[in-house]
Amino acid sequence: MPDYKFKLDFQVRHYECDMQGIVNNGVYQNYLEHARHEFLKSLGIDFAEFVERKINLVVVRAELDYKNPLSSGDIFWVGLNFERVSRVRFAFLQDIYKYPNDQIVMNAKIIGTALNERGRPSLPQQIESAFSVC
Amino acid sequence: MPDYKFKLDFQVRHYECDMQGIVNNGVYQNYLEHARHEFLKSLGIDFAEFVERKINLVVVRAELDYKNPLSSGDIFWVGLNFERVSRVRFAFLQDIYKYPNDQIVMNAKIIGTALNERGRPSLPQQIESAFSVC
Amino acid sequence: MPDYKFKLDFQVRHYECDMQGIVNNGVYQNYLEHARHEFLKSLGIDFAEFVERKINLVVVRAELDYKNPLSSGDIFWVGLNFERVSRVRFAFLQDIYKYPNDQIVMNAKIIGTALNERGRPSLPQQIESAFSVC
Amino acid sequence: MPDYKFKLDFQVRHYECDMQGIVNNGVYQNYLEHARHEFLKSLGIDFAEFVERKINLVVVRAELDYKNPLSSGDIFWVGLNFERVSRVRFAFLQDIYKYPNDQIVMNAKIIGTALNERGRPSLPQQIESAFSVC
Repeated sequence: MPDYKFKLDFQVRHYECDMQGIVNNGVYQNYLEHARHEFLKSLGIDFAEFVERKINLVVVRAELDYKNPLSSGDIFWVGLNFERVSRVRFAFLQDIYKYPNDQIVMNAKIIGTALNERGRPSLPQQIESAFSVC
Repeated sequence: MPDYKFKLDFQVRHYECDMQGIVNNGVYQNYLEHARHEFLKSLGIDFAEFVERKINLVVVRAELDYKNPLSSGDIFWVGLNFERVSRVRFAFLQDIYKYPNDQIVMNAKIIGTALNERGRPSLPQQIESAFSVC
Repeated sequence: MPDYKFKLDFQVRHYECDMQGIVNNGVYQNYLEHARHEFLKSLGIDFAEFVERKINLVVVRAELDYKNPLSSGDIFWVGLNFERVSRVRFAFLQDIYKYPNDQIVMNAKIIGTALNERGRPSLPQQIESAFSVC
Repeated sequence: MPDYKFKLDFQVRHYECDMQGIVNNGVYQNYLEHARHEFLKSLGIDFAEFVERKINLVVVRAELDYKNPLSSGDIFWVGLNFERVSRVRFAFLQDIYKYPNDQIVMNAKIIGTALNERGRPSLPQQIESAFSVC
């Protein structure tokens, strides 16, 4: 298991499970997104404030490897690392583990960029600074 | 069954069902909301444009009577009527019926208002006009 | 503010907010449902186990009064009381308050029943016992 | 644009959009999943029936390339191709295009398998037959 810059605990809610009794595919992206926002917040980056300044952080590519399913009531955590992948792109390396034994649930790589007011990729200073911290 | 000013067809999607194999409680509000937006659009009222003008249509109260559940793949329709209930409030009377026999699924009454830029209840002219059409 | 038999803390997640920048109407039902399940769990009642025994706890009616909106990142709590309303029906009285000042967000009354394997309303012993505790 | 074995039309619903005014990342997986289920249904394969027979179709890996965002009210379609990728794995190649000009919205590759009653990968006969049709 890699070292993670950021970790966040979650619990599966009933309405997130589908008729197979397991968490529906799309819901994992919600977990990952929430973990990313909380990570950014921990660096003093407020997503909603970016939206108001017309800076949009957007996902460019998502790679999700489903290893083991989560079920209703399961307690789990998301581990996150953050790195630059090009001049205007960054990657969140996010893995999900189930308590109590840290069974792997998902490996994910989320590539993103920031779009400025004119819709052009351009990383704001706060994101640039985040790389040096991570 | 009442006469409805507006009707909209839907199909239940798998991810809307929970582990009981039926549509989850909260999802019905999504169906009702979408039907309201399409109804307003049919009157030339664009919800997103309202948001840009800082006019927010908001729900004040929802009464939902769950009569029969919907399951994955079910085809159903929402019937809608619209009426003024006070100077600054309006009601959507919305019922859901399942095809092919129009079995009742839900009776709903959704009370709403419009908040202007300063957050005060105030109905825009387009909503006022909608009452006279309905 | 009433005394509550059960309380649960939440935080608004970004994906729960719509283009108005506030939590979408239907999402509040998700919060309420999760609080009900956690309450039942605190009494030793496992919703998933009921589903396996073909006992379905279902919502019959929901009354939701929207008082003030929640926004992305808001911390809030759900207070819950539970009472019998008829031989086969029970009510969850659920209110949502926003931290740090306990501003009221929503008052809700959720009426439910239990359906046995043949789809008939019938309260299992564990629910009957819950009334005496509450 | 490739030839597609299956196409399905959709319309963005308001509640699927987040505070950036565009469809939230996780929602695209819902669209893709619904298109897959409708495709399987068109071949006579009923997902819910599989669940009852304890055969679970599961996603093993998802690759999603976000090309252009969808906004509230947008009309779009999902194109789908289906192919075997190994003895027990299959792939859905799914692309999303926006009307009226077929602007590309997303390219997706969803790898799946089927788990039998004992949780082992094993493709049921109906899936095997689907390959020869596609």
